[in-house]
Amino acid sequence: MDIEQFRKAGYAAVDSICDYYANIQNVPVKAQVQPGYLIDQLPTSAPEDGQEFSTIQQDFGKLILPGITHWQSPSFFAYFPSNSTFECMIADMLASSVSNPGFNWICSPACTELEQVVVEWAAKLLGLEKTFWGSSGVGGGVIMGSASDCAFTAGIAARERALRDLALQNGVKPSDKNGQIEIPDTIRNEYSQKLVIYGSTQTHSLGAKTAVMLGLPFRAVPVSIEDNYALTGASLKEAIEADIAQGLIPFLVYATVGTTSTGAVDKIDEIGGVLTNYPTVFLHVDAAWAGVAYALPEYRAPLELNGVNKYADSFCANFHKWGLTTFDCSIFCVKNRKDLTQALDVTPTYLRSKEADAGTVIDYRNWQPALGRRFRSIKLWFVLRSYGVKGFQQHLLRGIEHCQQLEKIVKQSSKFEIVTPPSLALIVFRLNPAKSQENANIDDDELNLINQKLFTALDLRYDIFLTQTVLHSKERNMFVIRLAMGGVHTKFSDVENAWRIVEEEGEKVLSEWKAQKAME
Amino acid sequence: MDIEQFRKAGYAAVDSICDYYANIQNVPVKAQVQPGYLIDQLPTSAPEDGQEFSTIQQDFGKLILPGITHWQSPSFFAYFPSNSTFECMIADMLASSVSNPGFNWICSPACTELEQVVVEWAAKLLGLEKTFWGSSGVGGGVIMGSASDCAFTAGIAARERALRDLALQNGVKPSDKNGQIEIPDTIRNEYSQKLVIYGSTQTHSLGAKTAVMLGLPFRAVPVSIEDNYALTGASLKEAIEADIAQGLIPFLVYATVGTTSTGAVDKIDEIGGVLTNYPTVFLHVDAAWAGVAYALPEYRAPLELNGVNKYADSFCANFHKWGLTTFDCSIFCVKNRKDLTQALDVTPTYLRSKEADAGTVIDYRNWQPALGRRFRSIKLWFVLRSYGVKGFQQHLLRGIEHCQQLEKIVKQSSKFEIVTPPSLALIVFRLNPAKSQENANIDDDELNLINQKLFTALDLRYDIFLTQTVLHSKERNMFVIRLAMGGVHTKFSDVENAWRIVEEEGEKVLSEWKAQKAME
Repeated sequence: MDIEQFRKAGYAAVDSICDYYANIQNVPVKAQVQPGYLIDQLPTSAPEDGQEFSTIQQDFGKLILPGITHWQSPSFFAYFPSNSTFECMIADMLASSVSNPGFNWICSPACTELEQVVVEWAAKLLGLEKTFWGSSGVGGGVIMGSASDCAFTAGIAARERALRDLALQNGVKPSDKNGQIEIPDTIRNEYSQKLVIYGSTQTHSLGAKTAVMLGLPFRAVPVSIEDNYALTGASLKEAIEADIAQGLIPFLVYATVGTTSTGAVDKIDEIGGVLTNYPTVFLHVDAAWAGVAYALPEYRAPLELNGVNKYADSFCANFHKWGLTTFDCSIFCVKNRKDLTQALDVTPTYLRSKEADAGTVIDYRNWQPALGRRFRSIKLWFVLRSYGVKGFQQHLLRGIEHCQQLEKIVKQSSKFEIVTPPSLALIVFRLNPAKSQENANIDDDELNLINQKLFTALDLRYDIFLTQTVLHSKERNMFVIRLAMGGVHTKFSDVENAWRIVEEEGEKVLSEWKAQKAME
Repeated sequence: MDIEQFRKAGYAAVDSICDYYANIQNVPVKAQVQPGYLIDQLPTSAPEDGQEFSTIQQDFGKLILPGITHWQSPSFFAYFPSNSTFECMIADMLASSVSNPGFNWICSPACTELEQVVVEWAAKLLGLEKTFWGSSGVGGGVIMGSASDCAFTAGIAARERALRDLALQNGVKPSDKNGQIEIPDTIRNEYSQKLVIYGSTQTHSLGAKTAVMLGLPFRAVPVSIEDNYALTGASLKEAIEADIAQGLIPFLVYATVGTTSTGAVDKIDEIGGVLTNYPTVFLHVDAAWAGVAYALPEYRAPLELNGVNKYADSFCANFHKWGLTTFDCSIFCVKNRKDLTQALDVTPTYLRSKEADAGTVIDYRNWQPALGRRFRSIKLWFVLRSYGVKGFQQHLLRGIEHCQQLEKIVKQSSKFEIVTPPSLALIVFRLNPAKSQENANIDDDELNLINQKLFTALDLRYDIFLTQTVLHSKERNMFVIRLAMGGVHTKFSDVENAWRIVEEEGEKVLSEWKAQKAME
């Protein structure tokens, strides 16, 4: 493709995106295809001869779009939103046009420096204190691909820091060369398999997955309904003490601000207070979804921002969820960048540069597991400038307002109950016939079955998309349904429409249940 | 930004990319900026009010482009090429327009299925046998962000497989439920810290970095100049036996097809033969750069494809290097997909889907460390269709031909020597005054100093970009300079121009050296 062919194809692509968004509210949110739909339509190997790009481009519409689940549809309420904005589509194409693997500063100085700048913008937007800012010279931030990348990176950093602490405690002296502790094999071999990670039963699977990848145990500390599914300091302390009594070594806690199941906010302040007694333990705060809401000053206290600033070693918020920035854009901030570089810096000669040798630049490869990295910062730069702080805040407030309005409706329902206080733009509910007195005394097992039926019915539909979860707690396990708001194109009428469908399907499930009851 | 504003801004972005490429050969390849250039020009926090997008868009040209190192410049010869094509810029924008986090099939069936299809196209294009194809139902491929992601993932899979083997050997029985071996803590605790990873001194730092992340030792087995820096079966066997004698457990070998420093090809067939005696060891073949050259049938034998097909458990080739596909697009194929899923599948209720429960679809999150993933396959789909196999091959052949022509020139030089046979499109050379008899008997230390001076001079220039490396071998260590061809826009006249500059700078360094010699 030459330059003029690209101009033509580029315009056509822009036009096709315009058409897509002009019509997105009229298309079922969920892809209406069966497994294998695309595999069956495509050749089994690449063509020998090159094809006309116009044909290829048309196939995007013909073959790909029918198999897309429309996360930007106003009727998308599953998982969490994954906002995509026009600003980011342009940013992605521009980034692609100056593509480079970004592993060090000289790969493209603009990439590293823009990332330094916008991550600090993001940190300030969210109210993270100076200790997390790159300009502090000690802390700093980086854009990662996902919250699981952040959690895993925190895990590696935490393990190495803990082993350095243990080395120090065992009399190892810092190196004369650079003042750093080199972890001797003896220390690594003695302590590595004694390390333990903590989270709660509500921690995202990124906690368990990090544990699997590190080959270490993950303690899913139980939570209680009365604490709204939040991890408390007391429960954490109990779990830590039990492990210490067994000769194990706690080294990492994943605390969550806005859990996936219910948007619960762990008691960061309590947890941080407990951890002051266990200084080897690294505290990572995963605010993947809710973190952007710190942009609203009135939500900082309820989301325990003070605790994050006071106690967290690292923090993650996904701007690619509710933060208007197209996937992927996960902000990862640390209070001590050396926690990362001491764990991840491996620099052979062919990756050295005079700027890095001089210590005047950041080479972001040493802040993350992988070597290569994309130019992600341009998306966030475009979004924060185009929306401004005020526009960003208004977007968040709209999602929260939708949730508050829906909450009122559900509370008035005679069939549905909200199972835990709604969190920001997430509401979690279940069908509960016991809400009307005639059907009192239904046990949890039966309620779970009823709600599984309802979810199955909803999941067979293509016009709305919601997701299921099971709430594990000390008291009981509940199968419930989640409805997450915050889409860029979602109006409250779309939420109302979704709720109307939920009510209709609920009514059917309830009628069947009653009919079956009557026959028993 | 509304739809019509996007249309306007999108067209403008396409036009700006056209301008960029129309002029790319006239711009110095390396960014001419000093550390901090961009940080100093940007505000320290996000603006309160949203800004006009046209202003933001102009700032890309004003502030970002001056800080870009132009990897698509015809004068880019550093590291390895990172090809970007117009097809991919369009693909990236389209992918961004239907963005989703891609962690399971229903996130967008088209994403998962297109990835399954094009990864198999890639595997067939490279001559990987059916055991690596997804359609085999046992093996399969996935697109990752980088070769280091692939190597790390192979590392996790290898460790878990080794521990399952050790569990079996210790009498643990497969679970009645799913026939899988669950690794007991006792086995994990006893053996985890005894595991050892192998590569050579020429293995990319991804080997050492994986080892750091897994907290395990990496044995960099020495190589020899007479083997052209390739890892041999005999050297590997010696290293493995030495560790076994110490009670350690070899579990993972990284073999490289096309090392970063010189493009060396490890003796895959020999290595595989040795490993048949150590069945617990997992063999990952990292062909990050050279792997795409398997698309040329005449290079399959010299690049030891038979060995890969016969012995490798996993294989990686970066289409985002020399493979016309914009970063990131790293193809990772395995012979047994369960090696991945048994190590990485963590599925809470909120990530379950009816299709995954039915076992009819792939959920790619269980093939990789992170949960979320971008829609990368569309780039590769566009490239392979637009170029066709023949066009893809022609692109590779052009880079190889440039290298062969340059080789002739360097061989005729009275000052420069090629230090190891050129590999595909990579030539590694050094200035060696001993090539003319009057200067015979210069030792390596002096040669290294001379070449460091030459590299420093070249690195201060902005009009060409080459990189340095140090070749470690049993015989000696040499500081050398790499010149990697294969850019999409590079003509042989660009290579000639680069070489003219190298000769000029070499002449200067040599004159200084001679003057200094004369004074001694």
